Amino acid sequence: MNQIAEIDKYPHMISVRVRNFEVDSQGIVHNAVYLNYCEIGRVEYVRTLGIQLLPTGIFDNQFKINVKRNEINYESPAYLDDLLNVHTRISYIKNSSFCFDHIIMRPSDRTLIITQKSVQVNLNLKTGRPERLPDDIRKIIMNFDKSCYEI
Amino acid sequence: MNQIAEIDKYPHMISVRVRNFEVDSQGIVHNAVYLNYCEIGRVEYVRTLGIQLLPTGIFDNQFKINVKRNEINYESPAYLDDLLNVHTRISYIKNSSFCFDHIIMRPSDRTLIITQKSVQVNLNLKTGRPERLPDDIRKIIMNFDKSCYEI
Amino acid sequence: MNQIAEIDKYPHMISVRVRNFEVDSQGIVHNAVYLNYCEIGRVEYVRTLGIQLLPTGIFDNQFKINVKRNEINYESPAYLDDLLNVHTRISYIKNSSFCFDHIIMRPSDRTLIITQKSVQVNLNLKTGRPERLPDDIRKIIMNFDKSCYEI
Amino acid sequence: MNQIAEIDKYPHMISVRVRNFEVDSQGIVHNAVYLNYCEIGRVEYVRTLGIQLLPTGIFDNQFKINVKRNEINYESPAYLDDLLNVHTRISYIKNSSFCFDHIIMRPSDRTLIITQKSVQVNLNLKTGRPERLPDDIRKIIMNFDKSCYEI
Repeated sequence: MNQIAEIDKYPHMISVRVRNFEVDSQGIVHNAVYLNYCEIGRVEYVRTLGIQLLPTGIFDNQFKINVKRNEINYESPAYLDDLLNVHTRISYIKNSSFCFDHIIMRPSDRTLIITQKSVQVNLNLKTGRPERLPDDIRKIIMNFDKSCYEI
Repeated sequence: MNQIAEIDKYPHMISVRVRNFEVDSQGIVHNAVYLNYCEIGRVEYVRTLGIQLLPTGIFDNQFKINVKRNEINYESPAYLDDLLNVHTRISYIKNSSFCFDHIIMRPSDRTLIITQKSVQVNLNLKTGRPERLPDDIRKIIMNFDKSCYEI
Repeated sequence: MNQIAEIDKYPHMISVRVRNFEVDSQGIVHNAVYLNYCEIGRVEYVRTLGIQLLPTGIFDNQFKINVKRNEINYESPAYLDDLLNVHTRISYIKNSSFCFDHIIMRPSDRTLIITQKSVQVNLNLKTGRPERLPDDIRKIIMNFDKSCYEI
Repeated sequence: MNQIAEIDKYPHMISVRVRNFEVDSQGIVHNAVYLNYCEIGRVEYVRTLGIQLLPTGIFDNQFKINVKRNEINYESPAYLDDLLNVHTRISYIKNSSFCFDHIIMRPSDRTLIITQKSVQVNLNLKTGRPERLPDDIRKIIMNFDKSCYEI
C-alpha cells in the first residue's frame, strides 16, 4: 500500500494502547477517537521540536495553532488493547497554515488503520486572525521534517 | 428497591440517550460515562434554579463549585441506545460543601442503573479556598428541593 | 455563507448542548467532539426513517454501515453551554457507499460552526465486504431526503 | 499526607500524560477522566500478573470482572500536559469481590491528585452471577501484592 511505503517520510512516531473507553459496541475503536490519537501525535511531535505546550493550550513561543480542517480515511478497524503506532509529519507550510499528515499502523501485523490530514492555522494572539508562521519555527520544522515543503 | 421508592424526593429529572461512543466492547455504558450523565443532571438542575453556567465554567452569581468526592454504585448495566432518566437532588448543605444525589433509571423496564453521590465545595474565587455557601443560594435550593436539609 | 443558504436541503435537525467534558482548556469544543455530534445526528436521522439501532450497533434491517471517511471544516468555535443545531442529510448514494452531510449551527447568533461529510459503506454481515445498499432502503432515504441523488 | 506515606504498599505504577481532550474550560482534568486513568492502571496491573485482556473485554483465564462501585476523592487539580503517576494495588479480596485502590500523584511537585477505590466483582460467564474468585488468581495476586489480605 502506498501509505505504508511512504512511512519513512514521517520523522515522528509514538505508540498508543487502545483502551476500553475508546471502543464501541463492536469492540472497534470509535471513529472520533482517532482524532485524539493524531492530536497526541501532534503534541509529541511539537514537543520533540523543543516547543512546550502551556496549561492554556498555547505553545510557549507564541505558536497558537488551531485545527481548520480534518480529513480521515478509515482503512482497517483497530481493536481493544491493540498497540498502535501514530506516525506524524508536517507535509507542507503555506503562509499562516500548514498541514500535519498522520498514519496509524498496527505494527503486530503491519496493518494500516487510518490516514489523516489535519490543516492547522497560526493565529495572532491579540487579533485572533491568521498570521504568517514565523521564520524561526519554519526553520525548526524543516530541519526536523526533511520532506516538508513551503508553498 | 429503596432507591426507587425514594425517587419522589428528587425534584429534577432529565433524559439522556446512550450513544455509541459511550459504551464499551460489551455494549454496556462505560463506568466513567455515568459521571458525565450525573454532571449533565447537576448543570440542568442548577439551570432550573435560574443560575447560568458561564463559558468559564463558573455559575453566574459567583457560585464556583468544585467536585470534592464522587461515589457511584453500579446496579445494572445500561445498553447502547437506552433512554435513561437522571434524577437529581441536593440531599444536604453543610458550611461550604453540599451533596448532589443522583439516581439513573431505565424507565422502559423500571430498572435502577446507578446511584451516585457527588460532594461539591463552594470556593472563594480570589483565594481558591472553601467559603460558606451564600444564604440566598441556600434559600433558592431549599425552596426547590424540599427534602434537602442543612447540617 | 453558502452552507447556511443550503440549510433548507437538510431534512433532519437535532439540538445538542455543549458540556463541560467536551471543551478544552480554551473553553471551546474539542475538534474530535464534533464527530460525536454528527454521529448523534446520523443515528437520529436513521431513527426518523423508522430504522432501529440495535444494542450490537447494527441497524435492525440488516443495515450494517461503517464510516469510511470523515471530512470536517472548522468555521467558528463553539463554547461551553452553547445550544447547537446539527443538520443532517444524505447527499448521494453510490453502489455500497453513501454520504452524510452535516452542518452545525449556533442558532442564537446564526453562526456556522462546522461542516462535515461522512462517507459510509454498507457491509455484508457474513463476509464483511461492501454490498449494494438495498433498494428498499434507497427508496426510504430518497423519499425523506428530497435533494439526495443516486450516482 | 497519609496516602503519600502509604505509596510503598502499591506494587504497580504507570504514567499518563494529561491531554487537551481530558481537561475542562478551567484547564483542569475533568472529574470523570480520573476513572479512565485508574482503569488504565488496573488493566496494566493485571497485564503485569500475566493475564491478558481479550478483544471482548474479558481477561483470558475466565476472569470476568465488573466494576460494582467507585469512590474517588479529589485532592488537588491536575493540569493540561501534566505527567501523572497512577499507583495501583488490590487492598482486599472477599469471596467474589475485591478492591483496587489507586493513588494518582504529580511527581514533579509530589502533589497528591486523587485517591480512588474501585470494587470489582468476578462473574460467572454463563449465569452472569457473582462467583468466588478462583484460588489460582488469588495466589497470583497475593504473591504480587504483599499488603493485600483476604476477608
